[in-house]
Formats: sequence, C-alpha cells, structure tokens
Amino acid sequence: MDFFEVIEKRYSHKEKFLPDPVPLENLELIAKAGLAAPSGANGQSVRLIILPDREIIQKLCDLSPTDGLMTAPAAIALLTDSSTQTGEFNFEVEDYSAAAENMLLAAVALGYASLWLDFPYLHDDIQKAAIDILGAPDGYRLRVMLPIGLPDGPGTRRDKLPFDKRVSYRKFGGVK
Amino acid sequence: MDFFEVIEKRYSHKEKFLPDPVPLENLELIAKAGLAAPSGANGQSVRLIILPDREIIQKLCDLSPTDGLMTAPAAIALLTDSSTQTGEFNFEVEDYSAAAENMLLAAVALGYASLWLDFPYLHDDIQKAAIDILGAPDGYRLRVMLPIGLPDGPGTRRDKLPFDKRVSYRKFGGVK
Repeated sequence: MDFFEVIEKRYSHKEKFLPDPVPLENLELIAKAGLAAPSGANGQSVRLIILPDREIIQKLCDLSPTDGLMTAPAAIALLTDSSTQTGEFNFEVEDYSAAAENMLLAAVALGYASLWLDFPYLHDDIQKAAIDILGAPDGYRLRVMLPIGLPDGPGTRRDKLPFDKRVSYRKFGGVK
Repeated sequence: MDFFEVIEKRYSHKEKFLPDPVPLENLELIAKAGLAAPSGANGQSVRLIILPDREIIQKLCDLSPTDGLMTAPAAIALLTDSSTQTGEFNFEVEDYSAAAENMLLAAVALGYASLWLDFPYLHDDIQKAAIDILGAPDGYRLRVMLPIGLPDGPGTRRDKLPFDKRVSYRKFGGVK
C-alpha cells in the first residue's frame, strides 16, 4: 500500500475485531517494521513478543479487561530492556514509541487495524502481573500491547485540531 | 512509494545534504504525516515549525553545530506544548516520538533523507536558546529537529541486532 494512504488510514481501533487468525508471516512483517525504527544512540531497547493466538492475550485480558484487546485474534507485546541504556540519557520511551508507530502503520499496510494500548500497563500492579504472564526477566517493562486483526466495522476516528492550529512557518506562530 | 519500501529505506542521515530546496508543499505533506500520528488521550501535544530555508536553521547551527543540520536546505522543528497534558500521565515523549517517526518515513517516501536530531536540545542551556530562536512561549519544548533534503551520497546505516535476538514467540524467550 502507498505510504501516504497508510498514514491516512491509520486510526486507533478500540472496537471489536473479527476472529480471523493473522498469519504468522504477517505478524513477523509487522515486527520487522517495528525493529526498523530508529533508536536513541542505536541502543535498540525494544523487544517484541509475537502472540499469534488468544492464549496469552486472554490472560492479559483477564488481568485488565480492555477495549480493543478483548476480541483481538493476535497481538504483539512491546517491551523495553533498560540494560541497553548505558549513556547519559534514557531513550526507552522514544525507542518504543517509534517502534510502536511503525508497527501500527505496518498493520494498516497489510489490511489490519491495531491500537497503541498502554494505559493499563502504566499502573505498577498491572505492569508487574503482565510481565509475569509474559515471562520477562527483571529490567524489562511492558510498554504497549498492539492488538492486530481485521476490524469488525469501520471503527471511530477521533477529532483532530486543524493543520493551521498546530503548524507555523519560520517562527512559532508564523503564518505561511 | 510502497509502505514497506519506505520502512526499508529509512536511515538516520548524519552526512551532507545537497543544496536543492525542498518545495513547501512537500514540507507540508511531511508535517501532515506527523500530525496524523496518534497521541496519548488524544492530547495532540505536538506543534511543528516548518523551516523552508537556511535562515533559522543556520541560527540553530550557530547555537550548536551538529552533523546533519549544517547543510540541510530545510527542516521541521518539532515542539510539544505541555499545557495539553491535563490527565494523570504525561504523553509528550510518546506523542512527539510517533510524530517524528511518521515525518522521517514521509521524508523518505518523497525521496528525501532526514534525521531524528534531539541530542543538543536535551541540554538545558541549548534548549532555552533554541526556544528563544524559534520564538516559542513558556511551556513549549523543542524536542526534535528534522533536517530534510536530498542526501549528498548514500549515507551510513548503523548495524542492528538480528531479528531473533529481539523477537520471541508466545512468551519472552519463546522460539518459533
């Protein structure tokens, strides 16, 4: 799919998915796009866990029932490894956000819908339990779950501010 | 350009750019792609300043001479507005990182090279002076400068860890 068509079509799918499985090769293409994102000081802090069916996804839903994950036939869990950050600054958030965005776009390019689902895992108790479910060692943090599947319906787009409220020219507030 | 070709071709261009100007409509397409990125709780914290020639870019280079910006014929400055963050969590870093990644990819889709240049602006003194140059009010922070132009040469790609060192299946460490 053309790049700008992908950009146009991406939205946060919080509604239901169809139960059709997502072929593993497509999940791997999405993961590969995520890993192709830049990372601060090339630290490559992102680690991914491909969840090709409901088994582990359901355990995460039992932990925190969340719109968008409840019916997803597949998902990718995005973790960061803090031991990769050895410099003056920590780039884990930048790294995972760029990787997540690449994966959301890649899902759309393959005809799927997805969602940047982070809210539950910002809470310490759910974070700890989710890391246990995923079997990750100390030093890893679950940053985002990306449910992936065919959307059951068109989904809802959220309103965005107009271009000229967010973009200036030459100086802050400068007009074209 | 096809989405996955864009993903494949993107790299951090720290070398020289050709002096050819970048048409304003292309800078606007790149900006529009940035604003199409998701944002935490739809806070839309990202603000952009399009720099279509060397005038302001040169002032930022005088402040902090940085590879990748010294010869760029155009750039986009990415700022965040902290007043947009009214909830329990602050998503400015996630927001700007997703927007930056969209813009880096959009630049490639249009045949340009770009770079996620944040390092100078992580230092308080340079941050303050850069914000003065850009004329942004209190509460705004310059997060990234994205130089944009035709690359003068193929550029250097950094090594990345192999796929199977970063991706597991079903559980952390799980193999295919």
